[in-house]
Amino acid sequence: MIFVLPVQIRFAHCDPAGIVFYPRYFEMFNTVIEDWCEHGLGSSFREMHRQLGYGLPTAQVECSFMKPSELGETLQAHLHVNRIGTTSLHIEINLIGPDEALRVSVKMVLVLMDMTTRKPLALPEQLRQKMTAYLNQTD
Amino acid sequence: MIFVLPVQIRFAHCDPAGIVFYPRYFEMFNTVIEDWCEHGLGSSFREMHRQLGYGLPTAQVECSFMKPSELGETLQAHLHVNRIGTTSLHIEINLIGPDEALRVSVKMVLVLMDMTTRKPLALPEQLRQKMTAYLNQTD
Amino acid sequence: MIFVLPVQIRFAHCDPAGIVFYPRYFEMFNTVIEDWCEHGLGSSFREMHRQLGYGLPTAQVECSFMKPSELGETLQAHLHVNRIGTTSLHIEINLIGPDEALRVSVKMVLVLMDMTTRKPLALPEQLRQKMTAYLNQTD
Amino acid sequence: MIFVLPVQIRFAHCDPAGIVFYPRYFEMFNTVIEDWCEHGLGSSFREMHRQLGYGLPTAQVECSFMKPSELGETLQAHLHVNRIGTTSLHIEINLIGPDEALRVSVKMVLVLMDMTTRKPLALPEQLRQKMTAYLNQTD
Repeated sequence: MIFVLPVQIRFAHCDPAGIVFYPRYFEMFNTVIEDWCEHGLGSSFREMHRQLGYGLPTAQVECSFMKPSELGETLQAHLHVNRIGTTSLHIEINLIGPDEALRVSVKMVLVLMDMTTRKPLALPEQLRQKMTAYLNQTD
Repeated sequence: MIFVLPVQIRFAHCDPAGIVFYPRYFEMFNTVIEDWCEHGLGSSFREMHRQLGYGLPTAQVECSFMKPSELGETLQAHLHVNRIGTTSLHIEINLIGPDEALRVSVKMVLVLMDMTTRKPLALPEQLRQKMTAYLNQTD
Repeated sequence: MIFVLPVQIRFAHCDPAGIVFYPRYFEMFNTVIEDWCEHGLGSSFREMHRQLGYGLPTAQVECSFMKPSELGETLQAHLHVNRIGTTSLHIEINLIGPDEALRVSVKMVLVLMDMTTRKPLALPEQLRQKMTAYLNQTD
Repeated sequence: MIFVLPVQIRFAHCDPAGIVFYPRYFEMFNTVIEDWCEHGLGSSFREMHRQLGYGLPTAQVECSFMKPSELGETLQAHLHVNRIGTTSLHIEINLIGPDEALRVSVKMVLVLMDMTTRKPLALPEQLRQKMTAYLNQTD
């Protein structure tokens, strides 16, 4: 399975060149991950942070910016999982333009973390199973 | 008429106190105005900025933050027009929580501006008419 | 006394029109207030939030954007106090351009708040005295 | 040579966990690059964007977040050059905490670009020479 979410390029995202200022893409990625957690995995950031006391901080990022995106465009974000570790999760998000061209591609390593001790936590079995549905077998 | 848009509180909006960092509200307001221009007035920011060469910069802001908003909440943004000047537009946006409480209320003065000369422009008659539909008669 | 701080306009602050996107000004104001608390009042945000468990959320904002500011400019932020209430603080920040013109002027009401209970706190006497030094008698 | 710049962790950078929200690091990196261009290379972003009509968009990013950073800390950003291509520039920025620990390390590929045509430009000889001073021979 792939989790798909439309992402609209806003005025607030754009720089003096009229294209997305790249740090804003990382805010978009975070929105995609939030929606995936809530709607794809059934575990919202609110619940994680406020009730369970854990978070999903980003440990690593590898990102390629292939083509610029402009104000008013709607991109399609495609998220899948590349690897599920003991405490970590390797995901990939591709942003596709209305022209079907790949605009941005990111690989991220997220780590489940106890927000009080700031130590990594083993992914709970139920969460791990739900993540498995988004695992890309061929990657 | 009132233009209504749901606005979701994201992790990226929240501060160390777990509530919305107030400058993020202004980014939300901008999103509301963008969507109102495109869907309510039929004139997108993209078209304005890239084809017509004008913009809608903010000249004045009066904002009250009544109650904090938290990660994961969905607020309802209600936008209406308070006054239409020659080159300016006085709008009001109220953010209502899932508890029906008013969270944030802002009055803004926007000015139609030629982005090349940076001089105010008279609001085109067609735009003015569409804006009139959102005018609050009693304010 | 007036607290003065140079504020540099960064690429990250600027919009497709090449001028500061106004929500970024509120991030700049927050930086000015942080530095004033730390260096002017001797009570850093870190200490407030992490050791004392209180914060200084913004309750009200009245802001006028007189002239646009551009990438690479250095503005001078001038902060003074207009009124000191029991739990609230009324401050004013003026951003002055290299051309000596007033670019942005904001009046803000801040409230000292217990971050656990989210209730207002009376300003401690020592803090109040330090704030008094920045009080503008004529405002 | 290494270009060094202190970077202060602001309230605006921090998330509900009280640590830097990672997209904010990319805004910090951009500030470091801006200051390096202006003070290290003698060619400011303002001059590049407004007079010369070119920019330095980011084509690739590889970033590791080793340890979280907290509100009120001052990090030291260390920038050096790893490779100078025909139109591209490979840089590395390391953020060092007050505890001397490496907090964040990023490798970035920047491309000199004509902002009108959005085509890559060969790095001017003078700029290339100045960049060479920051080249890490052993990397």
